[in-house]
Amino acid sequence: MVLDIDRDRFVETMKRQAEIGANENGGLDRLTLTDADREVRDWFRDQLDALDLDVRVDEMGNTFGRRPGASDDGAVLLGSHLDSQPNGGIYDGPLGVVAALEFLRTLEDEGIETERPVEIVNWTNEEGSRFQPAMMASEVWAGKTSVEAAYETTDGDGVRFVDALERIGYRGDTPAEPQGPYDSYLELHVEQGPFLERGGHDVGVVTGIVGLQWGEITFHGEANHTGTTPMQYRNDALVAASDVITGIRRLPGTLGDRTVATTGDIDVEPGSINIIPEEVRFTFDVRDPDDDVIAEGLERIKAEMRAAAEREGVDWEYEERMSAASVDFADRCVSAVREAAADLSYDAREMVSGAGHDATHAASVCDTAMVFAVSEGGKSHTPDEYTSWDDCHAAAETYANAALRLAGVADGSESA
Amino acid sequence: MVLDIDRDRFVETMKRQAEIGANENGGLDRLTLTDADREVRDWFRDQLDALDLDVRVDEMGNTFGRRPGASDDGAVLLGSHLDSQPNGGIYDGPLGVVAALEFLRTLEDEGIETERPVEIVNWTNEEGSRFQPAMMASEVWAGKTSVEAAYETTDGDGVRFVDALERIGYRGDTPAEPQGPYDSYLELHVEQGPFLERGGHDVGVVTGIVGLQWGEITFHGEANHTGTTPMQYRNDALVAASDVITGIRRLPGTLGDRTVATTGDIDVEPGSINIIPEEVRFTFDVRDPDDDVIAEGLERIKAEMRAAAEREGVDWEYEERMSAASVDFADRCVSAVREAAADLSYDAREMVSGAGHDATHAASVCDTAMVFAVSEGGKSHTPDEYTSWDDCHAAAETYANAALRLAGVADGSESA
Repeated sequence: MVLDIDRDRFVETMKRQAEIGANENGGLDRLTLTDADREVRDWFRDQLDALDLDVRVDEMGNTFGRRPGASDDGAVLLGSHLDSQPNGGIYDGPLGVVAALEFLRTLEDEGIETERPVEIVNWTNEEGSRFQPAMMASEVWAGKTSVEAAYETTDGDGVRFVDALERIGYRGDTPAEPQGPYDSYLELHVEQGPFLERGGHDVGVVTGIVGLQWGEITFHGEANHTGTTPMQYRNDALVAASDVITGIRRLPGTLGDRTVATTGDIDVEPGSINIIPEEVRFTFDVRDPDDDVIAEGLERIKAEMRAAAEREGVDWEYEERMSAASVDFADRCVSAVREAAADLSYDAREMVSGAGHDATHAASVCDTAMVFAVSEGGKSHTPDEYTSWDDCHAAAETYANAALRLAGVADGSESA
Repeated sequence: MVLDIDRDRFVETMKRQAEIGANENGGLDRLTLTDADREVRDWFRDQLDALDLDVRVDEMGNTFGRRPGASDDGAVLLGSHLDSQPNGGIYDGPLGVVAALEFLRTLEDEGIETERPVEIVNWTNEEGSRFQPAMMASEVWAGKTSVEAAYETTDGDGVRFVDALERIGYRGDTPAEPQGPYDSYLELHVEQGPFLERGGHDVGVVTGIVGLQWGEITFHGEANHTGTTPMQYRNDALVAASDVITGIRRLPGTLGDRTVATTGDIDVEPGSINIIPEEVRFTFDVRDPDDDVIAEGLERIKAEMRAAAEREGVDWEYEERMSAASVDFADRCVSAVREAAADLSYDAREMVSGAGHDATHAASVCDTAMVFAVSEGGKSHTPDEYTSWDDCHAAAETYANAALRLAGVADGSESA
């Protein structure tokens, strides 16, 4: 059987959620644990109640709604996040939650009983723009970090995560860990990259998530007068940094065809037009689907760092900022997505996600896969983020049918 | 005749001035128009009064003390500045004022009447760290900018120059312009560079001041996700900037042997580890004794800027921040310094100043030259700035005897 997703209701629901925290730029200001986040959570809970689901809020504010299956076998977990970046777009996160909701509504409409229980989830603080790190609450749920550590995290104003959570009334009682067995996790998200649009594809079959290495390099040189200090007696920290940054730009071209490497931030001290830079700190971000390629990239960046330091006579310091292994999704879940797209005659592209998602953490709990929707211009984290309703609907249909394959239709179900 | 400078009194006076605004690092916090600046100005005026000089304070707070000569011919103007950088050294500025003072004291001690009048000056706000530009008050005095424009300049706290000047009681009545004719201006300053120390010289004979070109380049690229945006679809403003900065590092090696070129400051927006830099602004500073070389350097930097913008697909913007032509000092003044050093058997090196000084502006009013004292390690604008008392004394003696050559000894003077 092939499930149809009611396009009008689906689009209506997407538009409705986009009213909550809407800003004048046509985007969203719905930072985690703000009033707007409470409002969208309340709306979400109403939708779950309307479906008569068994609703749980856990200690991290993750909100689950469970629909029983014919069996007590491991559940199929579906969802994404409703929080946004500051001045973010209306698709990044909500599209996955609304698609899961629409799947559950369709099961009801069609009177379908699934073999496995199905759960929908709205993960807390996926974006990480107010409290770091991103994907904090799925990380806790997956047992990779503690509730206590997450609670003590503070935002830019010094507000603790736990106090912000309490304030909006979403500090739940359920332990932030899997409640019973899970068969699989499936997440729909916008691509946030250009591959689907440029290739003219309808939908993306995500086979995994790239690994990443974040680091920070500091060069210590000597501040001196720009006019009176001859070039040969300088120890210029910014020249050394620029050498490494151009090296990082060249790096991907000598590694894998999916390698990306970036310097996003740089600071210089004292930062005066007529003083030679004494101290320069800058970051880098290297990603690839292959962890060995990332390790090789890191070695090459360190080699550039040492060479630049030697050339300019400055000292270097290296600090790791984050390291995440790549994730390979489970074949059977990827196949479910691939086959669902084929059943619907969509042109699907297999791809690796360049961004992290809650699926990264879910994949350590149960078999996982993702569906990507087209991102026009590859834009995200901006009100310019855009996916046509056609593309949203194509992704949502692929998602619903993949979910149904994983959950199974119970013998004796009305539509079986 | 050769004048001797009383080393003990000279060193004592240097130490006394260094007590005013002294900080715990062994340096000075004597920013222009602060309480510490008022205190050192009051002390300076006491020294002038003790010599029975005719004291004038002009509208910019420049403080002059005049000692009559046998004739009313153009005066010889001597001096430097008593203000410091934040956490600056004790020699940059004060050494020139104290050397001029000691010259006047020695004339008194020896009962020497000069042919020309001799004036000493403490220029206001040479450093430019509180109110920009540097050397503002000598610039006004030389008629290159107006008193009104200087008055409206504000510091980082929004305080107007005129209000700060009024507050410390140094807004004088004398117009900020030359009062009567000047024959010449002579300034002693620390080198702030390494040439004298590295060459084992006693003193520097300064033949001019390099010209400079300051500019600011802004690249406008596109912010995007560092993980999902393939390298070939990026418009990375920081990569373009880094290319230009390494180009600026290479520039001097292809121009003159005294060319220096530096990027001192850089800012990146949005400046996040996982966002491709959208906008990067950075400065440059190019100096050379030859204005044609500076012009060629500017053209090459602009060519690098255009090439980098093309390569990375970003837009560029160029803004000139400052342009100053090089200054060639008058032969007769340079000769006076050269001959004074020779008379004293000092090993003197002829050199061009890499930094601007009040002499830059004085040179547009009358014939000018400078004497440089050794700067150990070439350091300045730091408490580590250091010149041995031997080197200070050698420079002060050279300075005093050059000044005496310019002022001339009157017929019938006691020591004639």
